[in-house]
Amino acid sequence: MGHIVKPFLEPRSIAVVGASKTVNRPGYIVVRNLREFGFTGEVYPVNPQGGEVLGFKMYKSIQCLPENIDLAFSMVPADETFELLSSCAAKGIKSVVLASGGFSESGLDGKKRQNEVVSFARENGIRIIGPNAQGPVSTSDNLGLTFCHLDSLKKGDVAFIAQSGQFCGPVLEFINSSLNLGISKSIDLGNCCDIDETHVMEYLENDPETKVIAVYMESIRGGERFLKVARRISKKKPIIVLKTGRTEDGLRTATSHTGAMKVNDTIFDVALKQAGIIRAGDMDEFLDLAKVFSGSCKLQGNRVGVVTYSGGIGTMVADACSEFGLRLAELSNDTIEKIVSALPPPARISNPLDLYAVSIPLDTDALYGVPIKAFMEDVNVDAVLSCFYMNRTAMKIDVNHLLSELVQIRKKPMAVWLIGEYGMIREYTKVFEENGVPVFASPERAIRALGALWRYSSHFAE
Amino acid sequence: MGHIVKPFLEPRSIAVVGASKTVNRPGYIVVRNLREFGFTGEVYPVNPQGGEVLGFKMYKSIQCLPENIDLAFSMVPADETFELLSSCAAKGIKSVVLASGGFSESGLDGKKRQNEVVSFARENGIRIIGPNAQGPVSTSDNLGLTFCHLDSLKKGDVAFIAQSGQFCGPVLEFINSSLNLGISKSIDLGNCCDIDETHVMEYLENDPETKVIAVYMESIRGGERFLKVARRISKKKPIIVLKTGRTEDGLRTATSHTGAMKVNDTIFDVALKQAGIIRAGDMDEFLDLAKVFSGSCKLQGNRVGVVTYSGGIGTMVADACSEFGLRLAELSNDTIEKIVSALPPPARISNPLDLYAVSIPLDTDALYGVPIKAFMEDVNVDAVLSCFYMNRTAMKIDVNHLLSELVQIRKKPMAVWLIGEYGMIREYTKVFEENGVPVFASPERAIRALGALWRYSSHFAE
Repeated sequence: MGHIVKPFLEPRSIAVVGASKTVNRPGYIVVRNLREFGFTGEVYPVNPQGGEVLGFKMYKSIQCLPENIDLAFSMVPADETFELLSSCAAKGIKSVVLASGGFSESGLDGKKRQNEVVSFARENGIRIIGPNAQGPVSTSDNLGLTFCHLDSLKKGDVAFIAQSGQFCGPVLEFINSSLNLGISKSIDLGNCCDIDETHVMEYLENDPETKVIAVYMESIRGGERFLKVARRISKKKPIIVLKTGRTEDGLRTATSHTGAMKVNDTIFDVALKQAGIIRAGDMDEFLDLAKVFSGSCKLQGNRVGVVTYSGGIGTMVADACSEFGLRLAELSNDTIEKIVSALPPPARISNPLDLYAVSIPLDTDALYGVPIKAFMEDVNVDAVLSCFYMNRTAMKIDVNHLLSELVQIRKKPMAVWLIGEYGMIREYTKVFEENGVPVFASPERAIRALGALWRYSSHFAE
Repeated sequence: MGHIVKPFLEPRSIAVVGASKTVNRPGYIVVRNLREFGFTGEVYPVNPQGGEVLGFKMYKSIQCLPENIDLAFSMVPADETFELLSSCAAKGIKSVVLASGGFSESGLDGKKRQNEVVSFARENGIRIIGPNAQGPVSTSDNLGLTFCHLDSLKKGDVAFIAQSGQFCGPVLEFINSSLNLGISKSIDLGNCCDIDETHVMEYLENDPETKVIAVYMESIRGGERFLKVARRISKKKPIIVLKTGRTEDGLRTATSHTGAMKVNDTIFDVALKQAGIIRAGDMDEFLDLAKVFSGSCKLQGNRVGVVTYSGGIGTMVADACSEFGLRLAELSNDTIEKIVSALPPPARISNPLDLYAVSIPLDTDALYGVPIKAFMEDVNVDAVLSCFYMNRTAMKIDVNHLLSELVQIRKKPMAVWLIGEYGMIREYTKVFEENGVPVFASPERAIRALGALWRYSSHFAE
């Protein structure tokens, strides 16, 4: 028998209870997602009306279904949940996603109902994700078991877990359509009445598709268990946590919408650090860290080399280094000589390297290429940040050429910031990121992400 | 006689010294920018070779130019600056932009040269912007006097000033191509040897096109004068400052690239607060604040009403409110009744209002429209943040309809965050922002911007 999370992420057969023929209703979108992304297991839509949906036969009840179904995804109203679970028990379905709300997030009655559901499930050996949950996604199994309308499943090595009912779907769609970041798995846990983030992390520990685990949390249940598992896993795979409910107002809001327990944030913060978990401060950082951990190797030290088109930007980067635990590298003589011999005067070689004074008359490949290569080869430099000015006439950079030259020496993390014409920024972002060089939305965010990479790398250094 | 900055931003005639016929050289781009954006004053390119550039006659020397020229823009090398200024003096040109580097930013020799240039200019009644400066932009005068290749000049009410040589151009191009934000003026001051940010602020104080002044600073010279002027102006127009060189490393970097003086950051911070200046912490916030101050009226209080598609996002917003000096509004009974009567159960009316539980089966106009309108009308609510999930099938919102309904009651700031499909995000961002509703890249950034608006509004409250 595999891990309890396995049937949720690698089901061979799924009953979709509350499937619908009406286009764009949740019960339709789930079936559409399963079909659209080429899920290869069996799909059994269930609806009392029978008929067909998207080429699948609709079953009138769970009772009518064939045996040995791995997973049920239920959209039945809260007050029909017992009937649903009874039918699942009778049919031998042991894993159930409860998508509907009306439980602990909706007041005392809902809380009572949720407790009763949990008791019943325990007695009958049923494991639950939810209630108030969106359902799991696995790109390696072409599984998009969610009523959130997805446009695509983009494969990658980041797994998202959320203690929330409506977090992963929209974020996933944003990532799919906007970032050059792929995911392995994505699971909204909703009210987290049974299967929780620790269970999913255990499963992901041995998932070969997952390199980075990103968890959105509002609460912590079984803190010792969570930290013990996290400590073990984070040695192998970085765990990024975005924990909200940091303030009184945030806590009150969190408590009301999933019925989560309160937890002191300072204690939580210390515990995360001890377990080697990297904490993101906000939504921007959460996605930035997913990107930098997905794309980069470990940092061997905290010395950053910076190439920039502007001294002002160099100053910002210098500030950010101080703030995020990095420092400006002292360039080796070798590096200085390489750059001096390539650039015309009045090049002043320093770190950050401000290319402004020499930028306009030069071929920009040489201009950027020489220093970046020199920095990448410098034993005094642990990571390189390049800030490019994107301009159709003044600054045309052959990024493919640059990257091909860098590919052999790129044994340290490199990050990029682009400013200027937006069309070019999008275009070059894609080229950089498809070649494993993460691009960030501001110089400070690039350094913040590298700083987190350093915190992680140094925590587990020998 | 007008303000000393006036000839730089409202010149009737410009000599472009070091103009070039070679496409995409700086001396070409300046002339191209003047022509392309329809500058209506006289343009006199100067180059010893003579000939023509882009239809303009090229003059062989400053000596050959007609009389009464308002402004010279010089790209001659640093060591020819004296000759240039002598010629300007002889010709009666009293305002000069020095674009070239090779001055205080390039070491001791350069510093000496800069001091001598300043002395000479003083003796001859010449005012200088630069050296090491990109040149001024004024959208109202169709003036793009810069060697930075601009794609467009988008009119608006934000003025940018930078104590840097290469700040405004790339940022401007990014704004033009990516944000729905227009600018009035933009000036890189470079090494700031003569005309400084205080002079420009004085000019902008009475510029009817400018509503918001955004200043990038690395240093402060004449601190008392700056603060006195800022205190006076910020009562009328918000002043946003991004000051780098906050840390030791940042200071060292700033000092080296423009030769700026060191300033203790804590003292600077306190002084800014006392003057009513709003300080941005980083590049993201700098642009966010330009946006929120440009688009919004003052805040009457710090109580925020939040409409969201997700309880998790509501929790993030609640945290951000605590962190940025705002609080969650207590909804009036009237608002609660309006929402209850419009939404089906199990709607739980709270703030943040989590629409998740009722979102799918409802018309999304009604879903979002009723609560947003109720919040905007609620006397207990001072600002509204709406978080929309953008999805082509599940969440189609008629924003135009919503905005047309809101237009009569919108007497308080409204901000928006969009997540989901990126194409829709871009499309709807445009619609919102063209209607004066700023859209932010994360819920935290939206609240941070509203928090700054509140700091400003409360600082100058009666």
